[in-house]
Amino acid sequence: MNFEFYNPTKMVFGAGVLSRLGEIVGQYGKKALIVTGGGSVKRSGTFAKAVESLAKAGITYAECSGVEPNPRITSVTRGAKIAREEGCDVIIALGGGSTMDASKVMAAAVLYDGDPWNLIGHGQADWHIPTKALPIITVPTLAATGSEMNGGAVISNAETKVKSFVKTSALFPKVALVDSELTLTVPKDQTAYGVCDIITHVMEGYFNGIDGTPIQDRWAEGVIINAMEYGRKAVADGSDLEARTQVQWASIVGLNGWVQAGVNTLSPMHMIEHALSAHHDITHGAGLAIVGPAWMRFAAKHRPQRFAQFAERVFGFSTEGKDDLELGLKAIDAYEEFLRNIGCPTHLSEVGIGDDQFEQYAKDAALVAHDNEGRLLARPAMTMDDIVGVLRSAL
Amino acid sequence: MNFEFYNPTKMVFGAGVLSRLGEIVGQYGKKALIVTGGGSVKRSGTFAKAVESLAKAGITYAECSGVEPNPRITSVTRGAKIAREEGCDVIIALGGGSTMDASKVMAAAVLYDGDPWNLIGHGQADWHIPTKALPIITVPTLAATGSEMNGGAVISNAETKVKSFVKTSALFPKVALVDSELTLTVPKDQTAYGVCDIITHVMEGYFNGIDGTPIQDRWAEGVIINAMEYGRKAVADGSDLEARTQVQWASIVGLNGWVQAGVNTLSPMHMIEHALSAHHDITHGAGLAIVGPAWMRFAAKHRPQRFAQFAERVFGFSTEGKDDLELGLKAIDAYEEFLRNIGCPTHLSEVGIGDDQFEQYAKDAALVAHDNEGRLLARPAMTMDDIVGVLRSAL
Repeated sequence: MNFEFYNPTKMVFGAGVLSRLGEIVGQYGKKALIVTGGGSVKRSGTFAKAVESLAKAGITYAECSGVEPNPRITSVTRGAKIAREEGCDVIIALGGGSTMDASKVMAAAVLYDGDPWNLIGHGQADWHIPTKALPIITVPTLAATGSEMNGGAVISNAETKVKSFVKTSALFPKVALVDSELTLTVPKDQTAYGVCDIITHVMEGYFNGIDGTPIQDRWAEGVIINAMEYGRKAVADGSDLEARTQVQWASIVGLNGWVQAGVNTLSPMHMIEHALSAHHDITHGAGLAIVGPAWMRFAAKHRPQRFAQFAERVFGFSTEGKDDLELGLKAIDAYEEFLRNIGCPTHLSEVGIGDDQFEQYAKDAALVAHDNEGRLLARPAMTMDDIVGVLRSAL
Repeated sequence: MNFEFYNPTKMVFGAGVLSRLGEIVGQYGKKALIVTGGGSVKRSGTFAKAVESLAKAGITYAECSGVEPNPRITSVTRGAKIAREEGCDVIIALGGGSTMDASKVMAAAVLYDGDPWNLIGHGQADWHIPTKALPIITVPTLAATGSEMNGGAVISNAETKVKSFVKTSALFPKVALVDSELTLTVPKDQTAYGVCDIITHVMEGYFNGIDGTPIQDRWAEGVIINAMEYGRKAVADGSDLEARTQVQWASIVGLNGWVQAGVNTLSPMHMIEHALSAHHDITHGAGLAIVGPAWMRFAAKHRPQRFAQFAERVFGFSTEGKDDLELGLKAIDAYEEFLRNIGCPTHLSEVGIGDDQFEQYAKDAALVAHDNEGRLLARPAMTMDDIVGVLRSAL
């Protein structure tokens, strides 16, 4: 274990804390750009509540609505332009992971004169990693990405069909204002995809990290156990505030760096999914439900012991009379069964993806995170054939 | 769960990272005050290595050595005076919890004109909670307190026999430089006391927090399980770098706020121990080994279910055919046995403390953290009689 950890985002967590938005934003600016997605925040009344709190604190605002799922660099450019023209000095991301990710890059793009796509890593020689950004306040309305409390963002380029990311300290939100009441209206399917996203974040480190991180192992298992338990409840009854709160808490700690500290995580499931959703615009969490179990069956052969630990500690399966691989595969089946039960797709055919572009997805998946033999960084590292094999097994 | 979380300390973790001290300090100042304890850092060569790294980066330094265990406010005053006279603009805490705690309050006292004892909460009407401090770099040489990555400090007043604390955001270190190699020379007894300190920090939240924090429960259990496993190894073989590293990691996460986020923790074991060590100058971790099991047997009667969960998940005891209290008491016995095995005292008589001042300790324990009936904040809240009863059971 040899690593650095830094996360200066202040978290304000609890049911009803949206009413504090104006007070908090006022510590960072006078005019906010409110960034939103497809309009659910207006239908649910969340937008009105946010604006009311801002007004009370004397904060004015401009608006950038319509950030799409799998947010595009064109939305980033558009939002940065509005912020500049309107003289905004603070950015409020009011929405899900897409809205938050786009907002972070907007905040950097406002202070950057070049093409915003330069800010995202996509294999270019001159990756201009942001060093400054307007203050960002995240207000998640969906429990999924953990974007509210980290310095990362995933952005797609519709022209080049590339979906990639940037992660750097300038993009840490100043404050994550996390109000679980806002997630009460999230529909069943999006709730389920969010739960899969949370679990997969934690699994990436758990299955692709270094050896010798026993505390982090226990923490990851704890998040997975609870995301499954309360995720099931939140899908069954969306109005269950306790379940919503636990799922949102799992979302935050799933990707704010605590569980992954020192783990040196790699993210093959995410990289493969990004390639799929760049081409097909499926919901990220749904894509992960398809890629996850398929990748796990591939990885279990190479590291059966770890998957047996997963089986024993997360599912409580008895180790008696079973070899590690057998036990691990049984746990993967149980996990896939859980995903199906909460309503996630687990096969490519369910989302209308066939095998005709598998080679391209494999190439795209390894674009940013590959070793010097071109293999996708993972445990074990994956050749193009390995990736195609995993995709084929998920057909 | 309704809470705020903020921890801006950057952590640099790993064997050998002390060599980066100069580079890191140089980001915050030009002349450092190096604060040390009883001299072990000089005997071990750590001080020389630190100074060498500073010299390479062109950083000069002044020195405040001799901070005692259970650090006194007089040491804080002395250190702040040196820093002022020598024009230091950054503070390096090179030592254990006492050194780090004293350094934090020195950093605030340098910028405060009043009596430094005002900075510590001790029931006074005009608690001057620090709002600014010189930049602080912590370099722990002992795995115990978690002080390296939090904004808290515990200071004693030898005149008034009061030991109390301050915890505020101005006291967060800028960087915690955590080099597990530095702990290789810690003697067996101090190693064991440190392990007890780590475990007790986590137990305070686990046994005295609110209900409904299932992820935090799992995390606390994970830290306790590993602190016991690697603590035992580190005591058995001080040169086991892997064990030292895991224990140090447990120390950090035991008190940097991650495990306790949202838990609303109370700290009765610490409060009672502080009262003891203010009067008797015993090592904090040794005092906790005495108070801990005694307090747990008291608390288990009031919350048997939680102690049964502890028994099942931490010790793997089967719940079959046992009631919760029986199971919980069995786990407390096992925990006490663990403490004795690694060399901790578990009775007051072992450290020469009798029952003649029990009433005074009880009063002191409740001095800062009490409800409006004067009971020590805990789960359940403790009357003076309850505290005396716990102390009596530990004789």
